[in-house]
Amino acid sequence: MRAVDLIQKKRDGKRLTKEEINWLISAYAAGTVPDYQMSAFAMAVYFRGMTMQETRDLTFAMVETGEHVDLSAIAGIKTDKHSTGGVGDKVTLILAPLVASFGVPVAKMSGRGLGHTGGTLDKLESVKGYRVELSQNEFIKQVQDIGLAVIGQSDKLVKADKMLYALRDVTATVDTIPLIASSVMSKKIAAGADSILLDVTVGEGAFMKTVAEAEKLAETMVELGEEVGRKTVAVITDMSQPLGQAVGNRLEVLEALQIMQGQGREDISRFICSLAQIMLSLAGVEKPLAAILQHLTDGSALKKFEEMVAAQGGNLEDLYRPSSARVVTEVFASESGYISDLPALDFALFAMKLGAGRAVKTDRLDYETGLVFDKKVGDAVQKGERLARIYSQEKLGENQLTEFKKNVKIMRVQRIPKEIIKIIS
Amino acid sequence: MRAVDLIQKKRDGKRLTKEEINWLISAYAAGTVPDYQMSAFAMAVYFRGMTMQETRDLTFAMVETGEHVDLSAIAGIKTDKHSTGGVGDKVTLILAPLVASFGVPVAKMSGRGLGHTGGTLDKLESVKGYRVELSQNEFIKQVQDIGLAVIGQSDKLVKADKMLYALRDVTATVDTIPLIASSVMSKKIAAGADSILLDVTVGEGAFMKTVAEAEKLAETMVELGEEVGRKTVAVITDMSQPLGQAVGNRLEVLEALQIMQGQGREDISRFICSLAQIMLSLAGVEKPLAAILQHLTDGSALKKFEEMVAAQGGNLEDLYRPSSARVVTEVFASESGYISDLPALDFALFAMKLGAGRAVKTDRLDYETGLVFDKKVGDAVQKGERLARIYSQEKLGENQLTEFKKNVKIMRVQRIPKEIIKIIS
Repeated sequence: MRAVDLIQKKRDGKRLTKEEINWLISAYAAGTVPDYQMSAFAMAVYFRGMTMQETRDLTFAMVETGEHVDLSAIAGIKTDKHSTGGVGDKVTLILAPLVASFGVPVAKMSGRGLGHTGGTLDKLESVKGYRVELSQNEFIKQVQDIGLAVIGQSDKLVKADKMLYALRDVTATVDTIPLIASSVMSKKIAAGADSILLDVTVGEGAFMKTVAEAEKLAETMVELGEEVGRKTVAVITDMSQPLGQAVGNRLEVLEALQIMQGQGREDISRFICSLAQIMLSLAGVEKPLAAILQHLTDGSALKKFEEMVAAQGGNLEDLYRPSSARVVTEVFASESGYISDLPALDFALFAMKLGAGRAVKTDRLDYETGLVFDKKVGDAVQKGERLARIYSQEKLGENQLTEFKKNVKIMRVQRIPKEIIKIIS
Repeated sequence: MRAVDLIQKKRDGKRLTKEEINWLISAYAAGTVPDYQMSAFAMAVYFRGMTMQETRDLTFAMVETGEHVDLSAIAGIKTDKHSTGGVGDKVTLILAPLVASFGVPVAKMSGRGLGHTGGTLDKLESVKGYRVELSQNEFIKQVQDIGLAVIGQSDKLVKADKMLYALRDVTATVDTIPLIASSVMSKKIAAGADSILLDVTVGEGAFMKTVAEAEKLAETMVELGEEVGRKTVAVITDMSQPLGQAVGNRLEVLEALQIMQGQGREDISRFICSLAQIMLSLAGVEKPLAAILQHLTDGSALKKFEEMVAAQGGNLEDLYRPSSARVVTEVFASESGYISDLPALDFALFAMKLGAGRAVKTDRLDYETGLVFDKKVGDAVQKGERLARIYSQEKLGENQLTEFKKNVKIMRVQRIPKEIIKIIS
């Protein structure tokens, strides 16, 4: 086979066979097919798409380019969770211990933040001592011992995805459903959990900009998971405004602690309980929302979280330490009304400039900086009331403050946002 | 600027500015933008196209990545000619000396064959001693002395085109008009002639499969040429069957000699005279067809050709030597009728397998092998009459002969092909 013929076939809108996809992906992972052919192929996929069968073949071909994690030594139905990325998305920090607090083992591999999206690993690493790199044995032993571990993805899983993901990032071929779905699901399948909850974010702060796109992606991923016998459910969730109150690594850990102390906003607490209900159900454990909310607020989830942090070397005193950012700037409302929009992407880029996010992979993060919103979309606000705090290392310029305030949209009419837009199973 | 942003802009169907295109092409030529970004860009261009303005900017940006040939030391209006490639296309071998025989200087840089298309350089190199690599000074001096030179393209012209052409070849991004037009015209502009005749081939044996596509390409190239003050005319010509009788390097040189001895087929002789009339007219020399045919057949063109071969080191005795292929297989008609189709691509691939063409750049050619057709489309044929001779080094298999004969289509109805389909100026 020749790569150029397969590129042309896809370019011309024809379907690739399983053998062709297997050949292409394994040759790419082996270094025989160079990046310049793979990027042309990815661009052809961007324009021509892939059939469900092709996407499936691509996903499984990718899984085969790396190791498979064997979680069979852990008793029970192991659950995993993945988010397609968002702004202020600290869900895993809370959801994983909450589910584990019901005795359902959570063995999760997470990623780092890039661009405007944050990453769970970065958030956990804001706690002094926390180790995201465990050996496979340590990982399994921890889940056996305390029912919960959140670590970085092993370098040995899905080699083709690591190569292709880096390539797509610099060739404008990220946002195409077959390549997103195969990237996510090849990693989830290789990571070995029995059931998978997919949080497919939609809106300005997500890769998917419309609900229709998000549904298409969600359906594709659910089908891929079910295909290999993993129970898979996707939840389409709103990412038009930041999730919860905090954006920034340490600030989000502190918000997660607050929520697990029963002091979080009701909307995000309820949202996470809904996700937990689905994850538990995937593992065969049916619980009413009230029981789950009970675990979230009575310290059960928090206890699990502290156990995990301690087990992975994190300093529990440092866990509760407030942000050490040198400057905290308060922002006040200049009119009364209801918050109508907090554009997620704009605030993500704002936080990134403060050091809370990476523009390129090699950027060093400042864990302490970020934003905390007092008011979210739908909240009533009085002129002069505090809207948010900005945590930075340098004093903010007048321009920055004006930019921030311009992005907080206040209107006369109240709009109540919906966190979960749709459930696809 | 970042390459990824420009790729995305093109991918999303937006127009690139002159500054953006200049940056991309010069960074690519400098090695700052890697192949894997350029191939994704080329694929985006394949799907989104380019406006005339973008194509212009691309062409001129490419010209600037190499040297410009200065032909001003040669008196008169210098003419050049380019074909977009064909099967059995020996036109330059005849047209260049024919035009030069009227005192119009022809300073031409030619290419090599690749895939199913032949190359003028390979044909000339089938003559022992012929040097295709002259220094710029030698090149200019030869045109001053005898009014004619056909050499290989200098390595110093249009660096970006050499890189991009090689890349497009292996990433299925060859057949897109803006990239073909800018590739051809950047080289023609850098090569310095005052007027340019473009032979845009169309049909099975050409890159352009439809007249509409060929017209689009022709119009684009003419506009690019005129833009920089080069008189440019494009002729759309039929490449559904091989051009003339011979396919294969030495065999084509021998056919060219025959034509210049007045013993060629009338159709190809008339076709080449029509092209010569246009080239002469571009140089301000108006001649009736009869006068041109006179020069073609009375030895004037042949004398120029011999002068050129001798000037470039070619052995004149070897020039007239017949093919040394060890086996000549004659093919006879198994029915009577009219030749209705001689599919150019099939015969090109047949000849390539005999060694007359290159599948990949590094293949070595066998100059002696190839095909000679006694009958062409439109010719009447009687059962048992000879249709063609096949020149090979090994005895042909039964399968090969069957394949060859199957491709010579004979019907009851006569169809007369048209060599020149349209002239665009």
